[in-house]
Amino acid sequence: MLSQTVEYALRAVVCLASSPESRLTTPQIAEATKVPAGYLSKVLQSLGRAGIVESQRGLGGGFTLRKRAEVLTVLEVINAVDPIQRIHRCPIDKPEHELELCPLHKRVDDAIAHIESAFANSIIAEILAEKPTGCDLHVDLST
Amino acid sequence: MLSQTVEYALRAVVCLASSPESRLTTPQIAEATKVPAGYLSKVLQSLGRAGIVESQRGLGGGFTLRKRAEVLTVLEVINAVDPIQRIHRCPIDKPEHELELCPLHKRVDDAIAHIESAFANSIIAEILAEKPTGCDLHVDLST
Repeated sequence: MLSQTVEYALRAVVCLASSPESRLTTPQIAEATKVPAGYLSKVLQSLGRAGIVESQRGLGGGFTLRKRAEVLTVLEVINAVDPIQRIHRCPIDKPEHELELCPLHKRVDDAIAHIESAFANSIIAEILAEKPTGCDLHVDLST
Repeated sequence: MLSQTVEYALRAVVCLASSPESRLTTPQIAEATKVPAGYLSKVLQSLGRAGIVESQRGLGGGFTLRKRAEVLTVLEVINAVDPIQRIHRCPIDKPEHELELCPLHKRVDDAIAHIESAFANSIIAEILAEKPTGCDLHVDLST
């Protein structure tokens, strides 16, 4: 239901949020999140364009969250890489459904709206803090 | 969020449910639902394999709903062509998340579960009967 790109973007953001004091390289994030490095690189670019992560080149460079995990939502991460599409107009272009969706598309849009709302209320920092399992995607910088 | 295939399958089922007394040909359904005939044909095959529609060949042949619209749900139609995938185990294969999803995947799965439940409670006949706009995908057999 959610794309692979969304899954990878969420893992990358959780990984970065788990190490707020560190700049992480693409290989480090790839290792921790089990995302192929080439794919991850494109995902990080999209997250960068959306202002969610920022990168610094060179020695000691790498990625950090640009937006604080305490105010960053799952929805923002999703919409940065593969936006949730609401149904705003009749997909069949029926003129009589121009002003109001038919019951079928209304139900589908209602379901999408619910997901949108649930993800808008899912804060990355809260997810990280949840017990008992936690989201263990931190990079071990001691090795 | 839902695939093109799902959208087309729902349109085809609503179209067939709107003409319960008639066998409809692929071109008739394609015309009413604005779905390309080749694509529609594959969708109808999947719906047939799932026992949702049945077809009769030859003169006067065509498709009808095999399952009554009063007991057919949106979820069954979706799962016949592009099943909703719940998250049953950690996508990263973390051993510590083997028995319980991490908070991130738990939230994503909760959202998918909500959609699954909403669609399981959406009966095709109820959608057709809803006012004011209705789902006008019936085939005009008088022309």
